[in-house]
Amino acid sequence: MVGLILRCMEAAAAKDSQEDRIVVMKFGGTSVAGPEEIKRAAARIVAARESGDRVVAVLSARGKTTDELVAAAYEISDRPDPREMDMLLSTGERVSCALCAMAIHDMGHHAISLTGSQAGIVTDSSHTKARIMEVKADRIREALGDEQIVLVAGFQGVSTDSRDVTTLGRGGSDTTAVAIAAALGASVCEIYTDVTGVFSADPRIVPDARKLPVVSYEEMLEMSAAGAKVLQLRSVEYARNNDVPIHCRSSFEDVPGTLVLPESETMERPIVTAVTHSTGESRVTVVGVRDEPGVAGRIFGALAEANVNVDVIIQNEPVGDNALADLSFTVDRDDLQTAVDVIDGLGDISNSIRTDEQIGKVSIVGAGMRSHPGVAAKVFEVMGDKRINIEMISTSPIKISCVIPADQVPEAVKGLHGAFGLGEDATFPEDPTGEHRPTVKP
Amino acid sequence: MVGLILRCMEAAAAKDSQEDRIVVMKFGGTSVAGPEEIKRAAARIVAARESGDRVVAVLSARGKTTDELVAAAYEISDRPDPREMDMLLSTGERVSCALCAMAIHDMGHHAISLTGSQAGIVTDSSHTKARIMEVKADRIREALGDEQIVLVAGFQGVSTDSRDVTTLGRGGSDTTAVAIAAALGASVCEIYTDVTGVFSADPRIVPDARKLPVVSYEEMLEMSAAGAKVLQLRSVEYARNNDVPIHCRSSFEDVPGTLVLPESETMERPIVTAVTHSTGESRVTVVGVRDEPGVAGRIFGALAEANVNVDVIIQNEPVGDNALADLSFTVDRDDLQTAVDVIDGLGDISNSIRTDEQIGKVSIVGAGMRSHPGVAAKVFEVMGDKRINIEMISTSPIKISCVIPADQVPEAVKGLHGAFGLGEDATFPEDPTGEHRPTVKP
Repeated sequence: MVGLILRCMEAAAAKDSQEDRIVVMKFGGTSVAGPEEIKRAAARIVAARESGDRVVAVLSARGKTTDELVAAAYEISDRPDPREMDMLLSTGERVSCALCAMAIHDMGHHAISLTGSQAGIVTDSSHTKARIMEVKADRIREALGDEQIVLVAGFQGVSTDSRDVTTLGRGGSDTTAVAIAAALGASVCEIYTDVTGVFSADPRIVPDARKLPVVSYEEMLEMSAAGAKVLQLRSVEYARNNDVPIHCRSSFEDVPGTLVLPESETMERPIVTAVTHSTGESRVTVVGVRDEPGVAGRIFGALAEANVNVDVIIQNEPVGDNALADLSFTVDRDDLQTAVDVIDGLGDISNSIRTDEQIGKVSIVGAGMRSHPGVAAKVFEVMGDKRINIEMISTSPIKISCVIPADQVPEAVKGLHGAFGLGEDATFPEDPTGEHRPTVKP
Repeated sequence: MVGLILRCMEAAAAKDSQEDRIVVMKFGGTSVAGPEEIKRAAARIVAARESGDRVVAVLSARGKTTDELVAAAYEISDRPDPREMDMLLSTGERVSCALCAMAIHDMGHHAISLTGSQAGIVTDSSHTKARIMEVKADRIREALGDEQIVLVAGFQGVSTDSRDVTTLGRGGSDTTAVAIAAALGASVCEIYTDVTGVFSADPRIVPDARKLPVVSYEEMLEMSAAGAKVLQLRSVEYARNNDVPIHCRSSFEDVPGTLVLPESETMERPIVTAVTHSTGESRVTVVGVRDEPGVAGRIFGALAEANVNVDVIIQNEPVGDNALADLSFTVDRDDLQTAVDVIDGLGDISNSIRTDEQIGKVSIVGAGMRSHPGVAAKVFEVMGDKRINIEMISTSPIKISCVIPADQVPEAVKGLHGAFGLGEDATFPEDPTGEHRPTVKP
C-alpha cells in the first residue's frame, strides 16, 4: 500500500518536473464562514501557489448563507420557482469568491474570481439539481497561463439550452471541484472541510475511530450513500469515472487527510473499512398492495419521476391465496411527504400507507468484504448481543446496511466498530510519506 | 402645459392602439427591502401587466444589502480589488430579482429574472463606475415576446473586452432602467422610490414644499447635480440624450409623481422651479498657487484622472506683482482625501492646502431663469437678510448655486423657497389628466 502511493508519487513527480502541477482546492462553507476563515483559506491557496503549483480554488457559500437565502425565498413563496431559486442561491458562492480574491490580492498574488458560467461549467436544465454536462475550461486555462490564481464559484453552472444559471444541489461544490480537476488533468482535487478526513466511524460516537489514510472510490461511494457526509456522492462518482484523485483534509489543521483513489489489486484491504450511519431517513410502508402485475413498478416509477430517491426496499411475500403484500422502503426525511403524496396520487393500489420517522441506518463498508463470507453473520451477532432489532437489510458486494430503531444507532455503531477491530492502529500508517500534500495522480 | 401633456398622451394612445406599450419600472432598495415590500412591488408590476402593457422591471439590491457587502469587503481588505468588488456587489440585485420573480409567479404570471449580463447591458471596463456602451436587448425582447414579465438586475453590466461583471456606481439602477427603456423604445421609464416625486424643496426642511408635476431634463440635471437625490445624474443625461420620458413616483402610494420631459417652447415656466441643497461636499483651498502657465490645468487634469468630480471652482485674482493666487474648489466629501493626495503628488506648486468640511450648498433651478435677469440679485438679498455669508458662487443659465456654512443650509433653503413663492399652488395642477400612469412618449 505504502509502496503503491510512493510509486504514484514518483511517477507524478517525473511528469511534473517538465511543467507546473495543477491543483484544485475546494473550501466548504465553514472554511469561508467569516473574514478570518476567508483569510486562512486565502493563505492556504497562496502557500500552494508559492510551492510552484498552479491553483484553482472552488469555494462554497459562506456559513449559513445558503440557508438564509432559502429562508428568504420561502418568506416570499411556498413553492419558489426552481429557475429563480438557482438565480438566488448562486449568489452565495460568488460573494465567497470575490472576498477571497480580495484577500489573495492583499497577500501580493494575482487572483480572479469566476462564476460557474464564466468558468465554463455547462449543465443540463434541471434547476436546483442540475448535472454537469461539460466543463469548457478555456477561461480557467487562460487565467492560469497568466499566472493567476483562479477562484471558481462552486455549486453552479449555466444550462446548455437556455443560458440560465443552474445549481447542482446541496454539496454540489464538491462536484464542481472534481469536474474542474478532471477537465484540467489536475494532479489532485483537495477537499477542505472542518474535519481532518474520512474516519472509520463518526468520532463523536466512537472516540477511538481512526482517520483512514486511503479509501477506494467504491468504498467512498458506499460510505457517502450510507451517511458519511464528507463528500457528496455525485462528486465521488465523477472522480471515479474520470480518475481524479481526491484528498479530503482539514482547512484548520495542516495535516494529511484521506486519499480517495482507484482500487488496485495490490492494495491490501481490511475486510471492513468503516462503519457509517444515518438518521436522516424515514420509512414508508404501503400496506396491502394490490396483487397485480406492475404495481411496484408504478410506485417506484412515480417516485422516481417526483425525484424521490429510494434507498432500502423490502417486500413481504404474501402468504396464501388472495393475500396482499406489504411494501416498505426508506427515503430522505425531506422527501417523506412527497413520497406519501405520490403514492396517494396513484389511486386505489393498497389498503393504507404507514410512515415511521424513528428509524436509523448503520452500515459497514469494505472492499475486502467481497472475498470474505461470514461478515453478515457477524453483523447479526453484534446486533443480537446488543438486542437491536434489524428491521430492514440491504447489501452490496462491499456494504451491509441495517435499518434499526433510531435511538439504538449509537450503540450499533460502537458495537460494529469494536467487533471488526476498526479502532486498532494496524494496517495503515497515518502519513506513509512524510509529505503533507501527496502527489497521487496515478 | 396641460394641453401639451394631453397632446402627448393622445399621440401615444394613437400609436399604442396598434401594439402593446412597453413600460420600464424601476424599484429602489427601500421598495424591495423585505418580503412585504417585494410582494408590493410584484403587485405593482402585475397590475401594469394586467393593464395590457409589456413590462420590464429593474430592481436594486434590498435595503442595506450593498452597504453590508461593502462592509464585508473592507473586513477583508483596506483596498478591495475593483473587479472583485463588482463581482461581490452585483449579487445584491440578483437576489432582489429572483425573489420578485417568485412573488410574481405566485400571482399567476410568468416572470424571468435576468442579470445585467443576460439582459445585454454592455459597459466599458471601469470597474465600480462603468458606463453603459450598448444595450443588446435581444433576450429581453424575446422574453417579452413570450408574454413574460422581465426582471433585470440593476446597477450592473458586463464589460465588452474582458466579459467581466461591472457595476455602474451608486444609483446606477436608474441608468439601467433608462438605458433599457431607450433600447426598447418604451413609452415611459417609471422610477419608484420612497418619495412621491420631485419637490420644490426638501419637505423635511420646507413643510409647504410642493410636488412638481413636470420638470424638464435640463432642470432635473441641474437639480441632480445640486443635491436632489431622486434621480442619479447620469440617468437623466441618458434620458435626455435618448428622449426617454421619466416618471418619478412612490412605490407605496398609487398617485402620480413627477414627469421628466423634454423642454418645449410652449411650456409655461416659472422663473424658479425648485430649491435644492447638499451637505455632502467639502472645500479644498490651494493657497498661494505658483504663478506659472498651466498650473490650474495640471491640478484639474490630475483630479480628473483620479476620477474626482470637481463642482464649484473659484480663483482669487492675485493683486500686485509676484502675488500668488488662491484656488478653491468643492468635491464630494468621499473624494476629499483623494483630492488632497493628488495635489500633494504634484510637487511644489503652492504654499499649502486647506480643507473645510463644514460647507453646504444651496441652489435654485429654473428654466425660466434664462429670460429673467435679477434672479441672482434676489438670491443675494435673501442671503443678506438672513445674514448668511456666501463663500462661493457658481451659475449656469438655469441654476445659481451658493456655497455657504453647513449649519445655515436649512435657513437658506427656507428663505429662498419663500422668496420665490415656490410653495404657492398656482401654475401646475397636481394631476392634469386624472390618469394615474400618464402616457407621455412625445
